[in-house]
Amino acid sequence: MSLARLPDDVVIAGNSRIFLLVLDGLGGIQHPRFNKTELQAARKPNLDRLARESMCGVLDPVMPGITPGSGPSHMALFGYDPLECNIGRGILSALGVDFELTENDLAARANFATVDAKGNVVDRRAGRISSEVNSKLCEKLGRSVKLPYGAKLFIQTESEHRAVVIFRGEGLLGDISDTDPQMVGVPPKEPAPLNPEAKKGSDIVRSFLTQASEILKDEHPANAILLRGFAMQKPFRSFYDRFKLKAAAVAKYPMYRGLARLIHMEVLPACEDMDAEIDLVRTKLQNFDFFYIHVKKTDSYGEDGNFEEKVKTIEQVDSKIPSLLALSPDVVVVTADHSTPSVMKAHSWHPVPVLLCAKTCRVDDVVSFDEISCAKGGIGRMPMVHLMNLILAHAGRLTKYGA
Amino acid sequence: MSLARLPDDVVIAGNSRIFLLVLDGLGGIQHPRFNKTELQAARKPNLDRLARESMCGVLDPVMPGITPGSGPSHMALFGYDPLECNIGRGILSALGVDFELTENDLAARANFATVDAKGNVVDRRAGRISSEVNSKLCEKLGRSVKLPYGAKLFIQTESEHRAVVIFRGEGLLGDISDTDPQMVGVPPKEPAPLNPEAKKGSDIVRSFLTQASEILKDEHPANAILLRGFAMQKPFRSFYDRFKLKAAAVAKYPMYRGLARLIHMEVLPACEDMDAEIDLVRTKLQNFDFFYIHVKKTDSYGEDGNFEEKVKTIEQVDSKIPSLLALSPDVVVVTADHSTPSVMKAHSWHPVPVLLCAKTCRVDDVVSFDEISCAKGGIGRMPMVHLMNLILAHAGRLTKYGA
Repeated sequence: MSLARLPDDVVIAGNSRIFLLVLDGLGGIQHPRFNKTELQAARKPNLDRLARESMCGVLDPVMPGITPGSGPSHMALFGYDPLECNIGRGILSALGVDFELTENDLAARANFATVDAKGNVVDRRAGRISSEVNSKLCEKLGRSVKLPYGAKLFIQTESEHRAVVIFRGEGLLGDISDTDPQMVGVPPKEPAPLNPEAKKGSDIVRSFLTQASEILKDEHPANAILLRGFAMQKPFRSFYDRFKLKAAAVAKYPMYRGLARLIHMEVLPACEDMDAEIDLVRTKLQNFDFFYIHVKKTDSYGEDGNFEEKVKTIEQVDSKIPSLLALSPDVVVVTADHSTPSVMKAHSWHPVPVLLCAKTCRVDDVVSFDEISCAKGGIGRMPMVHLMNLILAHAGRLTKYGA
Repeated sequence: MSLARLPDDVVIAGNSRIFLLVLDGLGGIQHPRFNKTELQAARKPNLDRLARESMCGVLDPVMPGITPGSGPSHMALFGYDPLECNIGRGILSALGVDFELTENDLAARANFATVDAKGNVVDRRAGRISSEVNSKLCEKLGRSVKLPYGAKLFIQTESEHRAVVIFRGEGLLGDISDTDPQMVGVPPKEPAPLNPEAKKGSDIVRSFLTQASEILKDEHPANAILLRGFAMQKPFRSFYDRFKLKAAAVAKYPMYRGLARLIHMEVLPACEDMDAEIDLVRTKLQNFDFFYIHVKKTDSYGEDGNFEEKVKTIEQVDSKIPSLLALSPDVVVVTADHSTPSVMKAHSWHPVPVLLCAKTCRVDDVVSFDEISCAKGGIGRMPMVHLMNLILAHAGRLTKYGA
């Protein structure tokens, strides 16, 4: 059972100025030391003022209880059913290094690792080698490996021990088991086809791994490679085609830029900080009517368990809200892709707070932009995938359904 | 993609007294002049008292962001998935003039219009001719036109320039393109079949239009006719079959009477005012266990942008609540089919407030029946199509699902 999809024929073209400000991992839970969530602890007069003029609520990225990765949660934010539009980890990694994928590409996330003389994994991250070493090894592998079936290899550094491997060839499938054993003291697993038609790809992967073992054998600590998250890119209907919105992505991190590119948003040049991002948006107001603006640090500090810095990041973003509002948007949404409570040091399933401000809002009585207040707001609790419907409605971009 | 449907086998027969009071277009947004919604502005002690003893919430007629026509929103109120049960505009118009449809009827909404010497539309509404002129023209067309394939023509006045045309014949389909160009300065469009099987109907429509042009040519300003919203009536499963409720519709306006008839509710004679309606319900308590009572004026004043009169209508309805409660219903629901904020002068997508009062209620702490308070109520935010489930449950008409 998936969620109801917006009927195509109610979407109409027009001119709008819509800002979707996404504070990655914003949602939290009360930290026992402070007895507050990060949002409750932050001094954020501008967001609170905006909340007073908005309607607020909480959104479930996938469904209650489900902790989403960045892929599904962003697809939901962009109005794509995250259960239908799941993106493989390999593909996400390829997007994250700005790799231009084709429909013949089988991608996997790679870890350089250390194996002992018996071939057992002793460090799944090869002592976190530098990105420079990683890059040299990728080049060497790319130069030396020859794949069967005329397949082509691309291997690109992510950072430290992480890389992406792409196998390009006809008739490949993503249904291949991980070779990363996810533990030490055992050898890497053999890749195996998860259905008969995936055998060709699996053979190619096996050949790659055999050759890589030989090529890396003297490169201690990075003397092995582990693969996981095999995936092909599914083509998605473009954001413009679905919503008739000319959309621009303002994001610094490659993965979010890649996610936006996957649905054919235009990705603007990366900026140093949020001031520069707002300046950039200002110069592009005539070219686009939808701006997705991504803030990463709320999530990073959440993952690090750094409550105080996550609070500070919220406060910094809060201080930029007036410059954003000075651009006179028709619709402003502030929300998160998922929760990353710093006390949990990880993504979580808790619904994320959202505020939506527009002339046609039914303003509720929420006066603070935090998880607890928003849960009592006028939007209530809603699947995240429906947020785009609300955005379109308040931008005057949906016509009546039925007579 | 549809919503989960109530399993048939949990519905049980029984005796109940259920009132579903629908204030059409009740939901609003804050009017900038008053900083309140119509419900917030209204003095409505009886509805507020009822809210205190009820559970409250807000309902999405179709899905968040979607502005429904009266058709889909009423289908949702009656427990029918509005995305599966969309009703064509032509059919709704036919229902609106109390036309008795058969399964061989192809219906379209008609506008009398004005075309110039070159055949270009100069007024899509023929100067809003009077209903009397409209009626004379309908009669003339009905008398003079001879349709091919032995098809029969019915043409009935709605009001002013609006009419309904029904083509009755075997093997017709609704997949025919509008002839109304929706703009002036161009000729009416030719009707075209949208799939090969719709050709017969399309030929009949074309013949009608050719003859109508000739018949109307000296009837300036109503010298042309534009058709849109071609549709056949899809048969719906009856309300009784689905819910085992003997239902009566108490509605004054033909379209709502027609919608009720579409699912085989019994439609009671139209009454002058709400007092008469309540008197009528009192006499029918032994015959029916579900009464759908429709109030139109909240919507009409909303469409007119008349905040004050919409408020007054709410206050008038409020004053009748005690007489309704004096009939000792088991379940009372007060809600709307959709929102019609007077500041927007149109239907809108905002969810509608709802209260449900019954002995088995989990009473929440809502003390005012308005959109903002209800959003914090115990029902939360729910798809409207599930309201019937709640009604049935609180009437003791649903048995346990599974062991």
